[in-house]
Amino acid sequence: MLVVQKYGGTSVGSIERIKNVARKLARFYQEGHQLVVVVSAMAGETDRLINLAYQMTNNPDPRELDVLLATGEQSSAALLAMALKDMGYPATSLVAFQARIFTDDAFGRARIDEIDCARLKKELETGNIVIVAGFQGIDRHGDITTLGRGGSDTTAVALAAALKADICEIYTDVEGVFTADPRICSDAKKINKISYDEMMELASLGAKVLQIRSVDVAKKYKVPVHVRSSFIEQEGTMVVDTDAEMEKVIVTAVTYNKDEARITVRGVPDRPGIAAQLFKPIGEAGIVVDMIIQNTSEEGITDMTFTVPKIDFKKALEIARQAANKIGAERVLGDEHIGKVSIVGVGMRNHPGVAARMFQSLANAGINILMISTSEIKVSCVIDEKEVERAVQVLHKAFDLGENV
Amino acid sequence: MLVVQKYGGTSVGSIERIKNVARKLARFYQEGHQLVVVVSAMAGETDRLINLAYQMTNNPDPRELDVLLATGEQSSAALLAMALKDMGYPATSLVAFQARIFTDDAFGRARIDEIDCARLKKELETGNIVIVAGFQGIDRHGDITTLGRGGSDTTAVALAAALKADICEIYTDVEGVFTADPRICSDAKKINKISYDEMMELASLGAKVLQIRSVDVAKKYKVPVHVRSSFIEQEGTMVVDTDAEMEKVIVTAVTYNKDEARITVRGVPDRPGIAAQLFKPIGEAGIVVDMIIQNTSEEGITDMTFTVPKIDFKKALEIARQAANKIGAERVLGDEHIGKVSIVGVGMRNHPGVAARMFQSLANAGINILMISTSEIKVSCVIDEKEVERAVQVLHKAFDLGENV
Repeated sequence: MLVVQKYGGTSVGSIERIKNVARKLARFYQEGHQLVVVVSAMAGETDRLINLAYQMTNNPDPRELDVLLATGEQSSAALLAMALKDMGYPATSLVAFQARIFTDDAFGRARIDEIDCARLKKELETGNIVIVAGFQGIDRHGDITTLGRGGSDTTAVALAAALKADICEIYTDVEGVFTADPRICSDAKKINKISYDEMMELASLGAKVLQIRSVDVAKKYKVPVHVRSSFIEQEGTMVVDTDAEMEKVIVTAVTYNKDEARITVRGVPDRPGIAAQLFKPIGEAGIVVDMIIQNTSEEGITDMTFTVPKIDFKKALEIARQAANKIGAERVLGDEHIGKVSIVGVGMRNHPGVAARMFQSLANAGINILMISTSEIKVSCVIDEKEVERAVQVLHKAFDLGENV
Repeated sequence: MLVVQKYGGTSVGSIERIKNVARKLARFYQEGHQLVVVVSAMAGETDRLINLAYQMTNNPDPRELDVLLATGEQSSAALLAMALKDMGYPATSLVAFQARIFTDDAFGRARIDEIDCARLKKELETGNIVIVAGFQGIDRHGDITTLGRGGSDTTAVALAAALKADICEIYTDVEGVFTADPRICSDAKKINKISYDEMMELASLGAKVLQIRSVDVAKKYKVPVHVRSSFIEQEGTMVVDTDAEMEKVIVTAVTYNKDEARITVRGVPDRPGIAAQLFKPIGEAGIVVDMIIQNTSEEGITDMTFTVPKIDFKKALEIARQAANKIGAERVLGDEHIGKVSIVGVGMRNHPGVAARMFQSLANAGINILMISTSEIKVSCVIDEKEVERAVQVLHKAFDLGENV
């Protein structure tokens, strides 16, 4: 088998842990597999480097920041290759320019355009375990780019796609994808198999198991992805195409995040082009708006509510106030103390009434819903931040997701 | 002017110092110069990385060690470019694969074969200050190599040669090259101008101002090299071709080192091929022999004495004992407590009796000479380690090298 494996920062967080990974790889290699291994920077290293940059300036140049950050994965790749060679196994590290991972030039959040596999294949053919520095690429000018937080997941899946690997295994510090955060629901169940679409929703709703882009690439190239623990020897969660069995399950998981804040613009004159006047300057400031809700207009006046990442809240509020002034809205209100709870499942497509059941369950628990947004396979409710944990527990139970069901 | 500058690890040893370098570069840039700047790793960083590798294994794979070590200069190059851009100056960092610095594949001590200047020139033409990560290259397979301790000097001189720069300035933590170590001779004088040949002798005799290879490259391509302080604004030492004036000076500098040990093989049967039998296994063990002395044979029996780096002493002694056994020598003696004191000067070529004057000065001071070796422009004496400082002082005075002469 040709296997691509990815080890996160915690898995390579110390010399001892790197040696553990090397021992694991040695076993796979002895079983006769071809191995391409993607590594993150040692835990803490990326933060150390970012901190160095911010000691230099509050606004580090994005190109140079990527040159700096890319050293983290280069170091861990070298150390892992060293460990393997020390144990007598043939290995070689490759950084992005050597692995020929080409990206666009969006420093700090580059997207992989293409991988030229010639060198990778040559190294595999000579029997080497190939260790690739994750998280990085080069653009068409030969400049070093990075793929954003969690980018090593995408490196791994993209390599698996390009090499037509049999599987991409993501070794991480959790045992897989769960029906809910086990710290909140003690009876949360590990999900054995989840669809790309569900995983994508979970990733974009705040589950930090996989970078969204990596799921996108996995789906596009039909790469089977196995999310599993580096520390415990057992099966994790397979991320694969939707199958009939999955569609029988109405809700696969409950998830939440507390990273957003809400802004309401009251008394907006309901004219065409008003929404654009509000959201254009926010977009231009690089702020990503998540949910947008516009009430039905009464007497030509409406309200608009939307959510933005908490870190952009103050800036967004300021921009909204300026825009509100211009368009003659009444006033702007902000609320940083919100949370979002969501249910996800491909089965929803065929089961009507799922959203209603969610609203009822929350209502029964006395939890007030502030905003609602839905897609084909998820329903999200914005609620008071303080109610988030309880809402997750209520929904986990309401949809029978626990171990002991 | 097109100027190549190199800043050592101490000069970029902290964020504050990197900012200082950036301010210096900004001034040069404003004066209208084109700048290519070579940086070492931040002081201590290379040792930190070596330490990481040796935590992994006592015998780190040389290829992977180079991948690891190269990150040190990549980081400092990125940080310096960041500092410049933050101050509003156009700058870009380049690592070896981007600067197209091609070397052989002798990991850890690679030699630069060729530099393809296309990208460097393009960056200069667009007005960028180009920051190049020193100490590293890529071999013809695209693997990362490093040039050995002090390798950034060689990167700088090689870039100056390839770009036909007007000058190569080596900014370091000393003010230039002195007639003797100022810690030993309080009246040691900064040398304003020194020849490539003299500098090469000084470098190989243990002066740590410039990597030997860099002087070699400077001489070959006639690159004027200016060694000067990063911290004090004054002229340092120009390293240039020999001129008539230099040849009038008999001795330019006194230098010393304590890094060698002596091995003597007594009672060697004086047959052809004996020396080869002794020195072949030593060479094969990767040990560099410096001086070799063979006494005149008496009744077919001779003694052989040679020096090796102190760190290789035990290994060399062991090998010498085995070889002595095979060739039927009497016994092998070792002495770790030796030092070497040398005088260097291109003027020696035309002034007979310089060596004799050196021996006499040492004799007058009661310092016993254990071994002697000479070249056209230097005389070295091995003496007791304890006498080294005094010998330097005696010779510095004997050849009138002090400030107050």
